[in-house]
Amino acid sequence: MLRRLDSADAGFDAALDELLAWEAREADAVAQEAARIIDEVRAEGDAALLRLTARLDGVRVQCAAELEVAASELERSFAALPGDDRRVLQAAAARIRRYHEHEPTGGFEMRDEFGNRLGQRVTPLDRVGVYIPGGQAAYPSTVLMTVLPARVAGVREVVAVTPTPDGRQSQHVLAAMHVAGVDRAFAVGGAQAVAALAYGTETVPKVDKVVGPGGAFVAAAKRLVFGPVGIDLIAGPSEILIIADGSAPPHWMALDLFSQAEHDADAQALLVAPDADYLDRVEAEMRRLLPTLSRAELIRESLAARGAMIAVNDLAEACEIADRVAPEHLQLSLREPDAWLDSIRHAGAIFVGSWSAEVLGDYSAGPSHVLPTFGTARYASVLSVADFQKRSSIVRAHRNGMPELGRLAVKLAEAEGLTAHAAAAAVRLREHNAAV
Amino acid sequence: MLRRLDSADAGFDAALDELLAWEAREADAVAQEAARIIDEVRAEGDAALLRLTARLDGVRVQCAAELEVAASELERSFAALPGDDRRVLQAAAARIRRYHEHEPTGGFEMRDEFGNRLGQRVTPLDRVGVYIPGGQAAYPSTVLMTVLPARVAGVREVVAVTPTPDGRQSQHVLAAMHVAGVDRAFAVGGAQAVAALAYGTETVPKVDKVVGPGGAFVAAAKRLVFGPVGIDLIAGPSEILIIADGSAPPHWMALDLFSQAEHDADAQALLVAPDADYLDRVEAEMRRLLPTLSRAELIRESLAARGAMIAVNDLAEACEIADRVAPEHLQLSLREPDAWLDSIRHAGAIFVGSWSAEVLGDYSAGPSHVLPTFGTARYASVLSVADFQKRSSIVRAHRNGMPELGRLAVKLAEAEGLTAHAAAAAVRLREHNAAV
Repeated sequence: MLRRLDSADAGFDAALDELLAWEAREADAVAQEAARIIDEVRAEGDAALLRLTARLDGVRVQCAAELEVAASELERSFAALPGDDRRVLQAAAARIRRYHEHEPTGGFEMRDEFGNRLGQRVTPLDRVGVYIPGGQAAYPSTVLMTVLPARVAGVREVVAVTPTPDGRQSQHVLAAMHVAGVDRAFAVGGAQAVAALAYGTETVPKVDKVVGPGGAFVAAAKRLVFGPVGIDLIAGPSEILIIADGSAPPHWMALDLFSQAEHDADAQALLVAPDADYLDRVEAEMRRLLPTLSRAELIRESLAARGAMIAVNDLAEACEIADRVAPEHLQLSLREPDAWLDSIRHAGAIFVGSWSAEVLGDYSAGPSHVLPTFGTARYASVLSVADFQKRSSIVRAHRNGMPELGRLAVKLAEAEGLTAHAAAAAVRLREHNAAV
Repeated sequence: MLRRLDSADAGFDAALDELLAWEAREADAVAQEAARIIDEVRAEGDAALLRLTARLDGVRVQCAAELEVAASELERSFAALPGDDRRVLQAAAARIRRYHEHEPTGGFEMRDEFGNRLGQRVTPLDRVGVYIPGGQAAYPSTVLMTVLPARVAGVREVVAVTPTPDGRQSQHVLAAMHVAGVDRAFAVGGAQAVAALAYGTETVPKVDKVVGPGGAFVAAAKRLVFGPVGIDLIAGPSEILIIADGSAPPHWMALDLFSQAEHDADAQALLVAPDADYLDRVEAEMRRLLPTLSRAELIRESLAARGAMIAVNDLAEACEIADRVAPEHLQLSLREPDAWLDSIRHAGAIFVGSWSAEVLGDYSAGPSHVLPTFGTARYASVLSVADFQKRSSIVRAHRNGMPELGRLAVKLAEAEGLTAHAAAAAVRLREHNAAV
């Protein structure tokens, strides 16, 4: 069902490297096609957007305004849901909002010994574009997990885009847009949607940053528009790594691995344990439970391609392997998870203890489920309020405190051969000295 | 000397757009050559790095180890400087370090009403690469402004690279590396240096993130390696926008504009004022002072190409224009700058009051001088401790608090058609319910 590795084997390091291999840069053909699409939208605006949406999504409309989904339509989608579905969306939204309201967001100010005041000001972005995948899968949860941190940050205008191939709209996605409070929504997707957000068209407003997950064309387009607009991260396949000491029921672990594997064929589910018998028991549960799941074929495929059980000597070694993987999701399904938490340096989200199933993080715990994948947790972060803010430095030189800064600046500017820099500092120094 | 715009003119908006126009994406030829270089270094490691460094920088060595600049050599460069230069580097470093130590860096933990604990953990990156431009200009200040925030963040290993065309090393740059405390330094540059940091070679260690300014090839390479490694931002030409009410001596403004314009031919210096007579007086001072500066030719060129004085109706309009420009550096050379600070939304660094010359920010005030350019201050931030940290979510579901999260997760997973997700939550719910 899925490969078994043992850290004691001679070829283990190479086998693990091979298992984790993922080409992060999009294929040249994808990148070139994305670049062509971007250039078309940039040059022709709405006309290109209409043409590309007709060609790639099979959605044919007369004018770009028809691609906009009105606020009233979002509200109608929400109102049309069963009452229980409405309450669940709102309850999840309330939890996600509250979590993000706890994020520290302040700047600071300090005063040096010369009376100069220096600080940092933190302010929200003006306008943000959120990409919500659509088509084969529709994820209302992703709407909440991207729009709400932006709203908490104080972003003035949130513009959501989502493809509707052949006109298929997800009522849940539209309803989630209503609950999260997007300002404008457009039924466009792919590289053309990213281009429209990055450069603006007659109908789609230009945004300051594009966030949200997407496929290879969206990833390639985000890479290319980075500069004129900000982007969050280049998304790759989703992963989970579970460290288990055998204290959790094996069928829990089986379902946790499945819930990662059912995302897509590239998803990666890894279970690391010092107890080989336990791995056998989890695998037996996997065999028993797999037929009960609607996506069994996909799960089988992704487990065979990229899944693994890894037997290790002890939990310390399990933590080392987790750090090597730097997984998007890390479950510490351990009797004493806190004893090991500090041994973990790299993970997008950490689920502490067996009751903390990764699925809770996908939907309802509170933190955004937009997380760094394929090892980028080594440097990248969970989507947060901070991603919708920017920091500006504030420098207030005091008349009597400026000379100290000025003298250093003159000397360093001279060392760098920048005489205008030196003169701009020196002229103030001279006038200060003349006055005292 | 530099163009004059008036916000009351009919064509003002178009003229301002034209003045600010900057193509952020690198030219296709540059991007393709950068991609080729990256592929060579990735495939061949040191061999490619040696070949490219010989070809592009004219530096020919036998083995890649010779490209490393030993810590002892950095220290010797520092020791060889005049005592005053050593003290200035150390004093500037102390100020920059202290400023960054004030940055808020903590995570948080909250507890919901069900006993679940949710939080965010903030940890430093393991290994960072810092690109220091070299060759025509050598900027020891950039070493301090990039390495010190990384050190304050707690990065374990900082690797610096800097090109040494034809073997020309800057003693000040090497000395600054010693003062800032880089762990390893390599005399390589360009796209090949970015590739070596991103993928590692036999000699150059793979890093988690590459930061620092560079030319078009460095920018193109950073864009391409984003994913396997993090990057800070895509750097463009440097800008200043000064809002002046006429209270600052005109020759101060002249020198502040020059100190921006002397960076390179694409640098942009803008002066915005409601008083046209004042603009005349500043221009007269510019004519008088320009011949005294060593880079007069370059200053003349960049002012003619991209500089401007802009007459406005009032300071409110000046602030609106500043927000449209979203400049890297904004000087509020005003009698009452604090009255206007809140009117400004977008700027990389704000210099408050006439004594706060931008040049102080370049060298000695404290905040990093690595700032978002060409309008990217709309979404991007000054280089900070936060750029060398990452945030991980922490989810600790409590046995008795998990059911609330689980019920929401089951419903949302069902709405998304993800039955394994629903099952992973449901199995815990059932066992919790069976136990109580």
